Amino acid sequence: MRQSKLFAKTVKDIPNEEKSINAQFLIKGGFIDKTMSGVYTYLPLGWRVLRKIEKIVREEINAIGGQEILMPALQPKENWQTTGRWEDFDALIKVSIDEEEKYALGPTHEEIITPLVKKFASSYKDLPTYVYQIQTKFRNEARPKSGLLRGREFIMKDLYSFHTSEEDLENYYQKAEKAYEKIYNRLGIGPLTYKTFASGGVFCQYSHEYQTITPYGEDTIYLCEKCKVAVNKEIVIKEQGGIPECVECGNKKLKEIKAIEVGNIFKLKTKFSESFNYQYTDEKGKLQPVVMGCYGIGVSRLAGAIVEIFHDDKGIIWPESIAPYKVHLLSLGNDRKVAEKSEILYNELLEAGIEVLFDDREESAGVKFADADLIGLPYRLVVSPKTLEKDSVEVKKRDGDKEELIKLKKVLGFFK
Amino acid sequence: MRQSKLFAKTVKDIPNEEKSINAQFLIKGGFIDKTMSGVYTYLPLGWRVLRKIEKIVREEINAIGGQEILMPALQPKENWQTTGRWEDFDALIKVSIDEEEKYALGPTHEEIITPLVKKFASSYKDLPTYVYQIQTKFRNEARPKSGLLRGREFIMKDLYSFHTSEEDLENYYQKAEKAYEKIYNRLGIGPLTYKTFASGGVFCQYSHEYQTITPYGEDTIYLCEKCKVAVNKEIVIKEQGGIPECVECGNKKLKEIKAIEVGNIFKLKTKFSESFNYQYTDEKGKLQPVVMGCYGIGVSRLAGAIVEIFHDDKGIIWPESIAPYKVHLLSLGNDRKVAEKSEILYNELLEAGIEVLFDDREESAGVKFADADLIGLPYRLVVSPKTLEKDSVEVKKRDGDKEELIKLKKVLGFFK
Repeated sequence: MRQSKLFAKTVKDIPNEEKSINAQFLIKGGFIDKTMSGVYTYLPLGWRVLRKIEKIVREEINAIGGQEILMPALQPKENWQTTGRWEDFDALIKVSIDEEEKYALGPTHEEIITPLVKKFASSYKDLPTYVYQIQTKFRNEARPKSGLLRGREFIMKDLYSFHTSEEDLENYYQKAEKAYEKIYNRLGIGPLTYKTFASGGVFCQYSHEYQTITPYGEDTIYLCEKCKVAVNKEIVIKEQGGIPECVECGNKKLKEIKAIEVGNIFKLKTKFSESFNYQYTDEKGKLQPVVMGCYGIGVSRLAGAIVEIFHDDKGIIWPESIAPYKVHLLSLGNDRKVAEKSEILYNELLEAGIEVLFDDREESAGVKFADADLIGLPYRLVVSPKTLEKDSVEVKKRDGDKEELIKLKKVLGFFK
Repeated sequence: MRQSKLFAKTVKDIPNEEKSINAQFLIKGGFIDKTMSGVYTYLPLGWRVLRKIEKIVREEINAIGGQEILMPALQPKENWQTTGRWEDFDALIKVSIDEEEKYALGPTHEEIITPLVKKFASSYKDLPTYVYQIQTKFRNEARPKSGLLRGREFIMKDLYSFHTSEEDLENYYQKAEKAYEKIYNRLGIGPLTYKTFASGGVFCQYSHEYQTITPYGEDTIYLCEKCKVAVNKEIVIKEQGGIPECVECGNKKLKEIKAIEVGNIFKLKTKFSESFNYQYTDEKGKLQPVVMGCYGIGVSRLAGAIVEIFHDDKGIIWPESIAPYKVHLLSLGNDRKVAEKSEILYNELLEAGIEVLFDDREESAGVKFADADLIGLPYRLVVSPKTLEKDSVEVKKRDGDKEELIKLKKVLGFFK
């Protein structure tokens, strides 16, 4: 992509109320635009990041048997009354038609998926089954203030599993945990991410969060470095009475550290199948309750979280797997030869299938370097009169501090 | 995919009020589920169709320079007041927060895209620019009754173009027309689809529909077989006083025929840029109004339209480019050898990268044949004791009536 053609540019002035690191860098870098409080438009660079996150999530959920569907955002009021959440779900946005409250604007999809799977999977032969979607969700956040971490409109992957027994749920729950580890590894946050025993009302004993360590985290966790699991500070205070200890080994020497939530999984058990009277027929013809699990990952939240985790004072440092482009090619100065060689290199990179953003704008070297640091692609390639004296380009990794010269004809080999 | 594992099955009983062909076949075939009036869930087979349509649309819009973004469904009331459509847009769904009307649930995105592009493209150097999205939209359809053709919640691609002059808009409008032709050709409806002069209020002279001929169409068009263009019956009655004639050549021998709308394009000109006071600075430093075009294709509507266009009394006949799978492999009877050979063939097809739905269920031949016709994949492969006597499988195209035997070892070659 030619940066001169990119309609959304880097910006200097951002809305005053945007205090979070992720919103600041994502708006400045031209990844997102604030439409209104808690609601963002994903611009070309930001949308590419989201699609890459989606692809990784999709592949790993497909690998554990997930079948992808798309459920609606508009949900019948009756379904929410059936579970009692029409009144109880705090942040539920209700939609009126002709002054009559008719729909919920889905913040989550248990109220749709449970009666849906009930229609099709009524025998033990139909179970277990695993169904997921990647869908836009809505919450009436009172004071959205964390950029993509907590919006009124956001994108989530939610997987639901349906089982004949708690043992079977337990087995799949462990598979889902492994899939989540793979996802975090591919996103580049694996080594910083811990399974965490979570607080959470009714689901308390049955739910886990995934928390990624970062000084900018909203949450505090107590980490057991022996077991590689953690416990959320909230649950410690509520349930352990203030003395933090490892849920698995009882270790009391836990590390208190800031973290950011990047996923959560629940054993719903029969909570929703009971509401919808969803039973299956077992081998003996007897009706039994269906046991459910659910597994969420915020796709847009992840984009924000990764910016909080990977940045420096100059801008974002994208992990290669989700960077909008792999290479930022900068052409410096007005020299005709620089322009020519840059064009040739740009086309060679494209032909080799390497994703490249080509800064072909008429801007100063200073502006181009600053924008490259802000946008944060993994590799910066600079073509200038000076590098061409040596038939070379200068390469620098965004997360490194070493610049090196590479011969023009060796650039493609470098990225192989 | 093993059909025995597919959680959503073919169904016999469908809601009484579903009178449209597309809703009947799509629900029976397990492609969609009706969540409530005008709102559907896309099941695994249906979601695959939609993703394939999306991919074709995305590729062709990228090819004419479209930059993909994602705008929100929640839209600020103020933006709709700015264009006067908060009151004027009939089917607008309004969302209240704490009993105050605050948001529109986007039925279209001019109110978001215009101020968005205004932020970034203020000079003649920034124009033209082309921005699109594939997004879920919402309309308060009074009586939705046409399945995926007209829902309360639906998926659309909408492309917006921004220009310095009407000539430049005209040039791009012609490019967009070519892109639309390519899309319809790839979707298999090209030869049946005609550019149609459309009615449509304020945009009347400046808008075109694409109409695909089918006896099940909701619209009537008058087709000029010489010019290969048509005029919508509504516009004939309104503007030509009832005597149909070709808009291009004046031909009065037009063919009256039923058709279904599969896209529309508008020259918005300065309608929205004026509302948002969006001007650009020209070469001489003078402010000039920005000229806009917009180009819509209903992605979910297309899925429904294609079922209306391509079906017989037994079920759907998917064009190969958007069929959820290319091959339906049926394993008939309880013979161990049939099961073994089917498994081997299934795995060979998968390894060769051929998309295959494998009917490995314990069902009768009758049920399997009926479901294969209903689901409508392009190729049916049957493995039975009879075909194995000749070391063969039986192949039948869904849109043909000839069955032929092919040696097992030649099956992969057949699909190459």
